[in-house]
Amino acid sequence: MYSFVNDYSETAHPAVLKALVDTNMEQCAGYGADEHCMNAAKYLKEKMNCENVDIHFISGGTQTNLLAIAAFLRPVEAVISAVTGHIEGHEGGAIEATGHKILTEDTPDGKLTVAHIQHAMDMNKEEYCPDAKLVYISNSTELGTVYNKAELEEISAFCKANDLILFIDGARMGSALACTDLTLADYPRLCDAFYVGGTKNGAFLGEALVIVNDSLKKNFRRHLKQRGAMLAKGKVLGVQFEALFEGNLFMELAQHANSCMDILRDGIAKLGYKFLVDSPSNQIFPIFPQNILDKINEKYMVLDYMPMDDGSRCVRMVTSWATDKEQCHNFVKDLEAFSK
Amino acid sequence: MYSFVNDYSETAHPAVLKALVDTNMEQCAGYGADEHCMNAAKYLKEKMNCENVDIHFISGGTQTNLLAIAAFLRPVEAVISAVTGHIEGHEGGAIEATGHKILTEDTPDGKLTVAHIQHAMDMNKEEYCPDAKLVYISNSTELGTVYNKAELEEISAFCKANDLILFIDGARMGSALACTDLTLADYPRLCDAFYVGGTKNGAFLGEALVIVNDSLKKNFRRHLKQRGAMLAKGKVLGVQFEALFEGNLFMELAQHANSCMDILRDGIAKLGYKFLVDSPSNQIFPIFPQNILDKINEKYMVLDYMPMDDGSRCVRMVTSWATDKEQCHNFVKDLEAFSK
Amino acid sequence: MYSFVNDYSETAHPAVLKALVDTNMEQCAGYGADEHCMNAAKYLKEKMNCENVDIHFISGGTQTNLLAIAAFLRPVEAVISAVTGHIEGHEGGAIEATGHKILTEDTPDGKLTVAHIQHAMDMNKEEYCPDAKLVYISNSTELGTVYNKAELEEISAFCKANDLILFIDGARMGSALACTDLTLADYPRLCDAFYVGGTKNGAFLGEALVIVNDSLKKNFRRHLKQRGAMLAKGKVLGVQFEALFEGNLFMELAQHANSCMDILRDGIAKLGYKFLVDSPSNQIFPIFPQNILDKINEKYMVLDYMPMDDGSRCVRMVTSWATDKEQCHNFVKDLEAFSK
Amino acid sequence: MYSFVNDYSETAHPAVLKALVDTNMEQCAGYGADEHCMNAAKYLKEKMNCENVDIHFISGGTQTNLLAIAAFLRPVEAVISAVTGHIEGHEGGAIEATGHKILTEDTPDGKLTVAHIQHAMDMNKEEYCPDAKLVYISNSTELGTVYNKAELEEISAFCKANDLILFIDGARMGSALACTDLTLADYPRLCDAFYVGGTKNGAFLGEALVIVNDSLKKNFRRHLKQRGAMLAKGKVLGVQFEALFEGNLFMELAQHANSCMDILRDGIAKLGYKFLVDSPSNQIFPIFPQNILDKINEKYMVLDYMPMDDGSRCVRMVTSWATDKEQCHNFVKDLEAFSK
Repeated sequence: MYSFVNDYSETAHPAVLKALVDTNMEQCAGYGADEHCMNAAKYLKEKMNCENVDIHFISGGTQTNLLAIAAFLRPVEAVISAVTGHIEGHEGGAIEATGHKILTEDTPDGKLTVAHIQHAMDMNKEEYCPDAKLVYISNSTELGTVYNKAELEEISAFCKANDLILFIDGARMGSALACTDLTLADYPRLCDAFYVGGTKNGAFLGEALVIVNDSLKKNFRRHLKQRGAMLAKGKVLGVQFEALFEGNLFMELAQHANSCMDILRDGIAKLGYKFLVDSPSNQIFPIFPQNILDKINEKYMVLDYMPMDDGSRCVRMVTSWATDKEQCHNFVKDLEAFSK
Repeated sequence: MYSFVNDYSETAHPAVLKALVDTNMEQCAGYGADEHCMNAAKYLKEKMNCENVDIHFISGGTQTNLLAIAAFLRPVEAVISAVTGHIEGHEGGAIEATGHKILTEDTPDGKLTVAHIQHAMDMNKEEYCPDAKLVYISNSTELGTVYNKAELEEISAFCKANDLILFIDGARMGSALACTDLTLADYPRLCDAFYVGGTKNGAFLGEALVIVNDSLKKNFRRHLKQRGAMLAKGKVLGVQFEALFEGNLFMELAQHANSCMDILRDGIAKLGYKFLVDSPSNQIFPIFPQNILDKINEKYMVLDYMPMDDGSRCVRMVTSWATDKEQCHNFVKDLEAFSK
Repeated sequence: MYSFVNDYSETAHPAVLKALVDTNMEQCAGYGADEHCMNAAKYLKEKMNCENVDIHFISGGTQTNLLAIAAFLRPVEAVISAVTGHIEGHEGGAIEATGHKILTEDTPDGKLTVAHIQHAMDMNKEEYCPDAKLVYISNSTELGTVYNKAELEEISAFCKANDLILFIDGARMGSALACTDLTLADYPRLCDAFYVGGTKNGAFLGEALVIVNDSLKKNFRRHLKQRGAMLAKGKVLGVQFEALFEGNLFMELAQHANSCMDILRDGIAKLGYKFLVDSPSNQIFPIFPQNILDKINEKYMVLDYMPMDDGSRCVRMVTSWATDKEQCHNFVKDLEAFSK
Repeated sequence: MYSFVNDYSETAHPAVLKALVDTNMEQCAGYGADEHCMNAAKYLKEKMNCENVDIHFISGGTQTNLLAIAAFLRPVEAVISAVTGHIEGHEGGAIEATGHKILTEDTPDGKLTVAHIQHAMDMNKEEYCPDAKLVYISNSTELGTVYNKAELEEISAFCKANDLILFIDGARMGSALACTDLTLADYPRLCDAFYVGGTKNGAFLGEALVIVNDSLKKNFRRHLKQRGAMLAKGKVLGVQFEALFEGNLFMELAQHANSCMDILRDGIAKLGYKFLVDSPSNQIFPIFPQNILDKINEKYMVLDYMPMDDGSRCVRMVTSWATDKEQCHNFVKDLEAFSK
């Protein structure tokens, strides 16, 4: 059984693992104050062509989201998110557990627009409502869709004009960068904070939170400590991001994931199957009749996402740096056979 | 410069790292639902001779402490801790950030007694006080001292009689087991929950939280998720604990740390230096005149812990699985030379 | 200008105020431990024909809701509420500020059904979701609709069968009791906790929280203290509830409010105007063309609730114990004149 | 039995109660947006000779403390307080329940000095500690002692120089003003926020929180709402503060309380009894042998505060606006008789 269920099944890219092994017996400073973390931050700043940012390495996406949002907001301030946002439906109420309400907007493709943000603000103008203050978007989104540069620029301009904090969840930033006109250097220009996801793109754990807005930087390492996110051996995060960003490995891995997905997406489309939404990144949501899905399930693992009105099933398929391209071709061939 | 500053300078014992490398390309279930985590839990249960416990693998000690305490307590319930407890002075207000007050007791050696616990209860009987409900102890303590079996049994009996939750911080449990009459099998019998520290004894990150009391088990994986502690690639924790507990590696590493410390402690004592407190585990707090410390600092890294009334300095020295025994002998020889 | 904007414009029923004046110089025990609070609790227990409940007097509705929900729930547990529920849209994110997510269900009339509750449970089965644990309903609802006895019994049975906590917001319980087959004695039988609203029915401040379920009672006075809800002069709450419940004043005031509303509702309906929803209690939501509303606004205060698709406006009108019946007749006559 | 146990036994000064009765049937705007609250704020601003402050009326002291501190601080920021501070020992863990640690300093008389504040800062410099950010003092203190103008000015200057927030708990501000060289106009000049206590000086409930520092003002009414502190009938607070501050009633009541206490303090001292601490305000802590206390307890209620080393008892006695001067004289006479 080959799995297309998610992009976190394998551990780490061999080059990342090698870096861990090579630095094993170094006596490093604890708590992320080591040279590997500093070096990784330096590489990242070079790639984003921006010196004046603070970079913190954190174990996972939920932890990064809750840390950033709780550190950035005052008690009465709330988050605006697509109803499909990861923080709303997949993080166990983590944001509310830090005291902040999420104001959700319905959106067919997982993407927020300026109109959505305006709507959330309008609905919460009264004193008996929380203050809509932070805009949370994911790029790529939880539906595999992406914001391109023009879309992000429009949201960014609106947020600046309305004194809103713009925070971008980059759990799958690599895949988004590899299929849009965005570069890493666009992010510090457009948002107040964001993170670069390592866990789903070559690392075994690790996200790099980048805080751009000076007013949000203070005491962040104390926040890390207080939420239990400061690893004693922080260097295990630094070492991995060094390996990913010293050269071009991060983007190469994302390109691999996307090119694997291109094979699956094109093959499925050519056989006449529809998708829940058009998604150019490493996640797709094709719709199969139940009998076809039954056959798929005998050889491959995919995620049963939701039933459709006509009785067919929408499934989620994901590729990653570790996906075997041959298995993508196999899937298409098998699907063709199942479909006859 | 050789470092005796702490027990988390090096990354991981080679056998632990090898396990990571060997399992790298396996497609595993995410979020700790993989077979390595299950297997590691099985080994731990065998070692503690107890089936009916829940085991969760968590990245670090502060995270484990705050997760457990916040999950176990109701809003108005408070924690009783020695004033030297790690949660009081070294975790950035993490427990208070979850809403719970810490009721501290002064104690010269970092160890709580039944009298301390009774005192904290007596001081908080009124309705305008929080309800003293959970006893937090560390074994070994933050001062390197240890509770032996009789001491733990007395505290345990008192907690049971008074409907208090007993939670043991095991960040340095290995070292405590290696220098007392306690075994891992004593823990589930004596307390409601505890953790087995991996980070300071061979792992690059990871603590195994063991929940014994049935009433505290419910929904704990949801707590993990909500606090950002559920790793997508949870198997990196399982793999390490498999390596540590399949055989006897965990205890061997703790014994190594302790035997390294025996060299330091005995050598320092023989040269006539005093200690802040008698500590049989892998942490000691010797007191040196400033001129001696200056010489030490030229060749070794130790932690400047506190000034003494007579102008001398108390320092903290720590050994670990990774400590080079030769360096311990060197330190003693050098100290002898400095002291002439 | 006469106001039908809400049911908290005037201060207190004269009999309530007289009780305050009569007891002014008594030296009473502080923090609600006085004889007036005890006496009021005794009257309430007699009215609900139930001894084994704990009763706490609290200043207001939002405070009562957040106190009860935060005390009853564990961190990962969430609340199920109608999207129109007061806690969702009118309490400033108070529930989330205590760490708990609200799982909202769409409902046209503000009433939850068993199907809604089941749906919320089904959508939150996974470990990455909070645990749907407490059902929050208001009776009467925020739309003026009411649950009758059969409806509450069905919800109650479902909650018991599914180990859910049923909590009823009784900010306008008086009005609901006065227009349904429910009595106060039904509440302890049907739910785990509820409150009897005084502020909107004769008191100048005060709600009586009734905790029925034994497992939810512990330490509640400590919760009051911790959330700043324990008044030094708690007797001012007790004295008011004594006045309301020694005889039948509470029900008489609610009946007055409802009978005032009957005049308004019938009059408006007879003139051919529609309502957003059918509501038998002291709140109605009639729909007027803009030109009619303009004329109303010259003589009366009503709350502009929402625009309708056809350009007309839905307004909220509320009556209370203090409403002048004559003004209700005047309103109908004026509306008839405006409508010609 | 006449009670000297506390200053919140009686309900309200008759003039305050009369104001409530006189305004009873006015239809006022809800939630503190009424003219009485505005008027009361105007009177207060005149008395403090300062226009640029925000004033919010809140039900009680614990609620005011937790609201202010939680609104002013970021998650990792902590409070510096005397160990005798009301927030530390008498508010049920209310501050910690909002997520903030209290850093306590030992002080014999309940008063913080600049040296205490510096010490708390020094002890929390490391990243693994919370950030000591807000200084909490009470004036008068929980031991009845007071800060005079010079002492407050020194603390204020230190706080400004070190970017600390200075917040003054004024539960018993009236009594402090009536026995020091401070006036209400000194407060906005010296601190960032403070409150003027009504509950213990003539009101039946109500404290006036005054926010001076512009950076702390934003969204405070949303904080009130979110914590359940915004009363539907907010006018009941405004009406009381109008009565207290339209003329000089507030100061007259405080002077009465102090002059009653002068009788007790002088009489007790003349009979040779010692006090735990010298306190010029409306609270004293005399020390009596057990046999004398037994006799006192037959005719008067006092609070048993703590045992002394020699077997005698320290008790707390409090006077208020409602204290009967005759009873103070009686007490002294009786004590004289008991002491023969």
